Amino acid sequence: MKRSIALSLAALVAALAAPAAQAQFAKASDAIKYRQSGMWILATHFGRIGAMVNGKVAFDAKTAADNAAIVAYMSKLPFAGFVEGSDKGETKAKAKIWTERVKFDQDRDNMQAAAAKLASTAAAPGLTLDQLKAAFGETAKTCKACHDAFREE
Amino acid sequence: MKRSIALSLAALVAALAAPAAQAQFAKASDAIKYRQSGMWILATHFGRIGAMVNGKVAFDAKTAADNAAIVAYMSKLPFAGFVEGSDKGETKAKAKIWTERVKFDQDRDNMQAAAAKLASTAAAPGLTLDQLKAAFGETAKTCKACHDAFREE
Repeated sequence: MKRSIALSLAALVAALAAPAAQAQFAKASDAIKYRQSGMWILATHFGRIGAMVNGKVAFDAKTAADNAAIVAYMSKLPFAGFVEGSDKGETKAKAKIWTERVKFDQDRDNMQAAAAKLASTAAAPGLTLDQLKAAFGETAKTCKACHDAFREE
Repeated sequence: MKRSIALSLAALVAALAAPAAQAQFAKASDAIKYRQSGMWILATHFGRIGAMVNGKVAFDAKTAADNAAIVAYMSKLPFAGFVEGSDKGETKAKAKIWTERVKFDQDRDNMQAAAAKLASTAAAPGLTLDQLKAAFGETAKTCKACHDAFREE
């Protein structure tokens, strides 16, 4: 009895919370544009660190730290755009994001944690290129894992 | 003589610095996409405060503060995308951004200052809707001033 009340309450809370989250965007295309915008900014700054890591531009600790701080901040934003009903339209998001949400959210958490570590690594005094490479590589893995699973080519 | 050397040096520094700034983006369309992405995220969160200010959603101080913090952060990003040569293409940016740069940069500074004030206002304990309205309105004015001058309809 107690358990079924708890379950009913949980269902009620979920039912009330879901429309509120979706109401953050007037329409699905706005949510898609929001997450794509966030990902583009994220990718831009992550790419600048990548250019250093890959030797295309000179290593500079300050530039690495500045870009990594933006990466860490931006890593938190786009996921609010993956609202129910936004699997259709101008998006590469696979529908299974919404049927395998636990795994998707775990992939998100992994990326955000790696991005935070990249930022703290890059901001630490005496940053070396090898340290930056390692933290960049760990973060890149988390991007790839989620894209492989949940993004169309 | 000294003056002409100083001028030559300034010109040299400018010549070296300009390609570096533009090199942040592989092509003009990337810079355009970057600034539009930043503006979209900025507008999304600013719009959520606007919905409260206009009575479309209930006033909530925590939500206002959270959105205003993102507005203040995002206010700093898009302007890096207004690089030389990015007045053509899929953009509403008027070419005079690059011929009236001092005014454009002043408009940017005004907006960033207003956004910072909006964030500090919204985060202050005991925020009232009237306080939020005032800070929102001041910020909206700075958006409009710059759009009126430098953005195509």
